[in-house]
Amino acid sequence: MMKNKHELVGLDLNDERIETPAFVIDDEKLEANLEFAKTRCRALGVTLRPHLKTHKSWTIAERQMVSPEGPATVSTLAEARYFAVHGVKDMIYAVGIAPQKLRIVSEIRRAGCDLKILLDSVEAAKLVSDYCLRTGETIPALIEIDVDGHRSGLTPENPDIVEVAKALKNGARLAGVLTHAGGSYDCGSIESIREAARCERDGIVAAAEMLRRAGFEVPIVSVGSTPTMAFAEDETGVTEIRAGVYAFFDLFMANLGVAPIDRIAGSVLATVIGHQKAKGQVIVDAGFLAMSRDRSTQRQPTDYGFGLVCDVNGKPIEGGRVIMKGTNQEHGILEAMTGEPLKAEDFPIGMRVRVLPNHACPTAAPYRTMLLLDKEGRVKEELFHVRGWDVSSDEADDE
Amino acid sequence: MMKNKHELVGLDLNDERIETPAFVIDDEKLEANLEFAKTRCRALGVTLRPHLKTHKSWTIAERQMVSPEGPATVSTLAEARYFAVHGVKDMIYAVGIAPQKLRIVSEIRRAGCDLKILLDSVEAAKLVSDYCLRTGETIPALIEIDVDGHRSGLTPENPDIVEVAKALKNGARLAGVLTHAGGSYDCGSIESIREAARCERDGIVAAAEMLRRAGFEVPIVSVGSTPTMAFAEDETGVTEIRAGVYAFFDLFMANLGVAPIDRIAGSVLATVIGHQKAKGQVIVDAGFLAMSRDRSTQRQPTDYGFGLVCDVNGKPIEGGRVIMKGTNQEHGILEAMTGEPLKAEDFPIGMRVRVLPNHACPTAAPYRTMLLLDKEGRVKEELFHVRGWDVSSDEADDE
Repeated sequence: MMKNKHELVGLDLNDERIETPAFVIDDEKLEANLEFAKTRCRALGVTLRPHLKTHKSWTIAERQMVSPEGPATVSTLAEARYFAVHGVKDMIYAVGIAPQKLRIVSEIRRAGCDLKILLDSVEAAKLVSDYCLRTGETIPALIEIDVDGHRSGLTPENPDIVEVAKALKNGARLAGVLTHAGGSYDCGSIESIREAARCERDGIVAAAEMLRRAGFEVPIVSVGSTPTMAFAEDETGVTEIRAGVYAFFDLFMANLGVAPIDRIAGSVLATVIGHQKAKGQVIVDAGFLAMSRDRSTQRQPTDYGFGLVCDVNGKPIEGGRVIMKGTNQEHGILEAMTGEPLKAEDFPIGMRVRVLPNHACPTAAPYRTMLLLDKEGRVKEELFHVRGWDVSSDEADDE
Repeated sequence: MMKNKHELVGLDLNDERIETPAFVIDDEKLEANLEFAKTRCRALGVTLRPHLKTHKSWTIAERQMVSPEGPATVSTLAEARYFAVHGVKDMIYAVGIAPQKLRIVSEIRRAGCDLKILLDSVEAAKLVSDYCLRTGETIPALIEIDVDGHRSGLTPENPDIVEVAKALKNGARLAGVLTHAGGSYDCGSIESIREAARCERDGIVAAAEMLRRAGFEVPIVSVGSTPTMAFAEDETGVTEIRAGVYAFFDLFMANLGVAPIDRIAGSVLATVIGHQKAKGQVIVDAGFLAMSRDRSTQRQPTDYGFGLVCDVNGKPIEGGRVIMKGTNQEHGILEAMTGEPLKAEDFPIGMRVRVLPNHACPTAAPYRTMLLLDKEGRVKEELFHVRGWDVSSDEADDE
């Protein structure tokens, strides 16, 4: 029953050898999206340090980074190990460090990758410095700055920033400051995204300046989010931008105005398995495990349910009026946005559709492989990627 | 950097060799939950055909089924293949069939497993019969009945049921009727769950009787959902019950009144990585990939956010008042339900907590392994399971 790893190459998406649900990527759109960020960062005069958590794939990372050695950003140590094995030498693990994880950080660093960590308290800085003193290592750490109150970090004016840097000095090393303008996800207009980018820049530069006034070197001044990367006008004082979801884009980003729907590169291939004729519904074999439970477009101008339904070529059906209204674990329920019933004869059993996701990152995560499509919609390559958190898994080497 | 597969056995959950987030299972609670369903089904005089989609693990399935050969229910063909490889001989793939999948169904059947499929239309029945005529096989199919309008199936009084059976006769074989009382998930009281169970039984028995009057044999009359399994009073005419989430239970089931919180067997082990002192928040390293985006308790009496926070031993902290209020991909934000600020000193960096999920199935799905814990909270066994949809993956054999 086993198939060779690359036997899907050359097939079109109606071929039954392609099992559904499957995560598919339009290579042309992907390429345009990757180029977009490179161009933006060049124009802004900053380094692009892409966040690889959206796809977790080496094949994409290699094209996304400015060099095969990085720089890059990751969200788990499983990603860090995987990309380090593939030769990335400059990485930030951009989630606050837990002391239990330092052992693995050390292993990855000793294997030749300059993996940097993140923290936002004197407590964490002391734990890291103590670890470094015990092991004789010097782990570089960035201080997380909170520019918009959406998650972690010290506010830019908080004097504790200097205290954290001092605590790091006793063993570890200050590598810089980092912020993520997660608040930009709630912007209602392009102008407010520009304002979020200004606020992100002003905050991180203020934090860096506070540290420099206190006598610290601050080599990295890192900002990032896809919306602020897309619309920032001035990044003076910033050294690098991290962004990730732009590689695929998604309906959430489309609603925000960051990219049009036809730039969304990743979607879920599904097969029609039934109808509820009395209700005008169509049932497909992609449910909440295939799409994720993400309902983030619910609070946006257009609520796409669990996704926007396209034909097998990736074109929204009937001008974009069919959505995945509901899900069970392996069932997706399609309805017209207008409430008008869908006609069963337009969706025969066995018909394949592609569903654009609300949020690319959780949607891509559970698939063993992702299928890269050429311009004609044929499988060009089967991409392996990291799943889960298990650093010692050999799955990541499975290609 | 690789570790042996079983080197976690014997460790307690504070050991740094256990990476977080991790999915952990209290074996004693699991055992009680598995026994509960067996006892219920014996009392009701019906066969238990557990749904294995909650955990997708052979180790648990073997204890959950009434025999190592089944019967069992699965939600993907990847699960079907995995459990068939482990020796299950009687399985229902309880998601409407797509014609493209018949090839794989055949392969699994030829390998010795009596895998049955599901459909709810003349259109699908014809496709299956045509396939059988072409290949010379006789695939057994159940007709899906919709007793409460929540998803797929024909309503019990729909005369098309007989037409579907007729269409199956030309090649395939009618194996029975099946329904899932998914509507029971919306019940507001135990009495209304009992009513849902009556409605489920009445509907499926009516459908079976319609077929029998038309001259068909209906060997399987299958109902199922964890709530109706828990509270059904009479299953006369039903031959089997399918249920799945009871193996772990979860906050959604607790809110429904199906099981108390202390029966929830599966949780996510997470580590404190920071604080937002001004907001009284604690940040942990389990975000929406670790917990899933499921927010199903939002529409229930108690909204647990993304989960209820327990200490490392699994006891709700401060009487159950700490929840995971928000998530990012790899961040969880803990708050008190009461709005009162959490004290950072009660949650030092590096502290481990366990978070009970809203919905066990999507939470368990992304983990490479699940850790089974003994009474003392030490790792007893590392359980491998199926992930994703790739039937040809060899991952499922990874134990």
